[in-house]
Amino acid sequence: MTRTLRIGLLGCGVVGTGVLQLLRDHRERLTSRVDVALEVRRIGVRDIARPRDAIVPTKLLTDDLTSVVEADDVDVVVEVMGGLDVAGPLMRRALERGKHVVTANKALIAEYGSDLLEVAHAHGADLYFEAAVAGGIPILRVLRESLVSDRVTRLRGVVNGTSNYILSRMAQEGVDFEVALREAQAAGYAEADPALDINGGDAAHKLAILATLAFGARVTPANVYTEGIDTVAAEDIAFARNLGYAIKPLAVARETPSGQLDLRVHPALIPRDNALANIHDAINAVQIDAAALGSGLLSGPGAGQLPTAMSVLSDIVDVARNYAAGAHGRVPPRAVREVRLADIPVHDILELRARYYLRFSVADRPGVLGFLATVLGAHDVSIEQMFQEGRSDEMRWATVVILTHRARERDIRDAIAEIERDEYVYRPAHRILIEE
Amino acid sequence: MTRTLRIGLLGCGVVGTGVLQLLRDHRERLTSRVDVALEVRRIGVRDIARPRDAIVPTKLLTDDLTSVVEADDVDVVVEVMGGLDVAGPLMRRALERGKHVVTANKALIAEYGSDLLEVAHAHGADLYFEAAVAGGIPILRVLRESLVSDRVTRLRGVVNGTSNYILSRMAQEGVDFEVALREAQAAGYAEADPALDINGGDAAHKLAILATLAFGARVTPANVYTEGIDTVAAEDIAFARNLGYAIKPLAVARETPSGQLDLRVHPALIPRDNALANIHDAINAVQIDAAALGSGLLSGPGAGQLPTAMSVLSDIVDVARNYAAGAHGRVPPRAVREVRLADIPVHDILELRARYYLRFSVADRPGVLGFLATVLGAHDVSIEQMFQEGRSDEMRWATVVILTHRARERDIRDAIAEIERDEYVYRPAHRILIEE
Repeated sequence: MTRTLRIGLLGCGVVGTGVLQLLRDHRERLTSRVDVALEVRRIGVRDIARPRDAIVPTKLLTDDLTSVVEADDVDVVVEVMGGLDVAGPLMRRALERGKHVVTANKALIAEYGSDLLEVAHAHGADLYFEAAVAGGIPILRVLRESLVSDRVTRLRGVVNGTSNYILSRMAQEGVDFEVALREAQAAGYAEADPALDINGGDAAHKLAILATLAFGARVTPANVYTEGIDTVAAEDIAFARNLGYAIKPLAVARETPSGQLDLRVHPALIPRDNALANIHDAINAVQIDAAALGSGLLSGPGAGQLPTAMSVLSDIVDVARNYAAGAHGRVPPRAVREVRLADIPVHDILELRARYYLRFSVADRPGVLGFLATVLGAHDVSIEQMFQEGRSDEMRWATVVILTHRARERDIRDAIAEIERDEYVYRPAHRILIEE
Repeated sequence: MTRTLRIGLLGCGVVGTGVLQLLRDHRERLTSRVDVALEVRRIGVRDIARPRDAIVPTKLLTDDLTSVVEADDVDVVVEVMGGLDVAGPLMRRALERGKHVVTANKALIAEYGSDLLEVAHAHGADLYFEAAVAGGIPILRVLRESLVSDRVTRLRGVVNGTSNYILSRMAQEGVDFEVALREAQAAGYAEADPALDINGGDAAHKLAILATLAFGARVTPANVYTEGIDTVAAEDIAFARNLGYAIKPLAVARETPSGQLDLRVHPALIPRDNALANIHDAINAVQIDAAALGSGLLSGPGAGQLPTAMSVLSDIVDVARNYAAGAHGRVPPRAVREVRLADIPVHDILELRARYYLRFSVADRPGVLGFLATVLGAHDVSIEQMFQEGRSDEMRWATVVILTHRARERDIRDAIAEIERDEYVYRPAHRILIEE
């Protein structure tokens, strides 16, 4: 006899509706591959009156969200409503009641994932959150199940589709940031308030989750050095291309040789022959370096209704398989529970050593290149390439682009600050890290 | 109290030694993430006297392979010896004894995987074989665990590292097949007998396993249309590049609109902007198209001691987690057991419709282009591009390269056969499929 896993859905917007659609469209496949019937029993929403897709069974709707979490006829709570203040306590309560939880809420998991895993463990419940990172890409499952046998040394990814879309449009059309942002909004890639996408906050959430799993450390977004993409200009992209690089919104989590965690989100110059340089538009990708594996890459849609719903549903299937086998907590969160960030200190961004792309707008007068080189040299920044371009006869200014040898972030910043104090230099100078 | 999963290793060559190395190097990580101690109890080898790495505990060695499978102190048999005749009956016996099996044996799984899954199911045992396909890439786990919630419509991959290495060398250095093959052998990528790599047989094994999992069908290598890469010449690669394509050793499993399975392994022209065109050297990659996902890609090392050992060990961890949770057979093989290939007919390669690259060497005489175009047209093959090159004053012959519009494979072959019968055409003509 086939058992039934009873689902309580919290939230029924785009992703929730997608989950209902996949449950209907793939019912037969799921039954043959899971041995457990999946049945939605309750759907908690904030506003019952809101118009919804015909697939939503309106008789299951309730605006009493707590009732979904407390209900005896719900085995797994699937949270696709988002937000921290309401969703957080509901998730905790569900786990305390011994209910399994599947969530797509990246902010919640990034901030409280380790705590919630502890609660889950204490109450014999499963907590899965594949859809919280990189939409349809099964990166969390790969880290948890496949690379458990390996030692991850570095993750590098393009994990924010909106900012990748914007930089891709800027590269393809030569338009500036604001134009590309409006295009992204028109195409539905960027929210009305795109701040978290553009300032790197969204990517920092995702990186915190990835680093927590990959390094068994308790990483939160506050540990991640974060820079937005809004300082990148169309001409930076053009200069980078001529030098053999693409500019991408990068997220990096790396174990340094001294055993610290280097955690950062920022635009970066990436060599054209690196696969990440060829991840365009709203596609996401994560590159994994590990001791035994060497290097591997996963790429795919980073967002979207059905890719995200697919990831949510694959987690529900995981819960269902555990449920059928009586095997909750099959993947123990011990690693996450027992390691504290204190054990893996965060690398100071100011101590990072990298090559840099610098662009200065300077008055076109004799000696300016010498001035730049002298100041950089005084701060231990040595120059690999330097060229002057874009002279304007009217304005009497020129653009100087410099690629440095490896230098300390702190020295780069100090040198730039000193250069910007010069009255013949227009601010701000542009500084973009080169990721080898 | 931590339980112990007792391992019987069959085979202790390159991969077996790698598994022992990872078990040692990652012992602490594994313990914290698995909650089960992993302990090798017996190692079955054909020749005890053979010199081995110092990591191999010689006191565990035995040449009585059956004793490893029958031993009461072995919970999981890890088979990394390869071959069908000896390994096959041993695996079957292990499963019949209720022992779990982890294997890297792609030939065995490709031929008998569905049968062995049935035996495993009947005896409550787990059977895992991640390392059998694409080395360090967790493609089987992604198909089994992540895409269970989706409907796969197409898999396309570069899954034979040797042939990809050879074609990459030919492209990078302009050398011919035989030279690149010797380089591959010198670099350790190709076996002394590289036949299975070069004739596509190895890729057909892998594709059969992938298609079985992706489509829930019982696919064996005999169902896969297979063409080797040895007909590709350096000049084909050069012409293809000028036309915007790379030539790659491709494996395709696709559900056709009429519900058949299109299964094929052959060299193919791939547009430069497709990610598969940029998978070089011994790297493997698999592109997945699915109804909800859209399109995703996994890439990484397709072979090698530690990547393969890492995949074997990740399967051992899966078994260990099931073991700790008392959840064997957690992922039911029902889909594989209940579907027969009769239910999903194989698409006839002769009915395939695709664009083609054709290259003819013809006597340099008036009317030869007209002759080629006329014969192709008579067989319903229409020409998209045609150009003549490489005239040699001495030889009085010319090379004609043609890209066709979509045409039937059968018509292409008939047209080529007719063209080759002409006394002014040098055989063989070259025909390579263009994969869009």
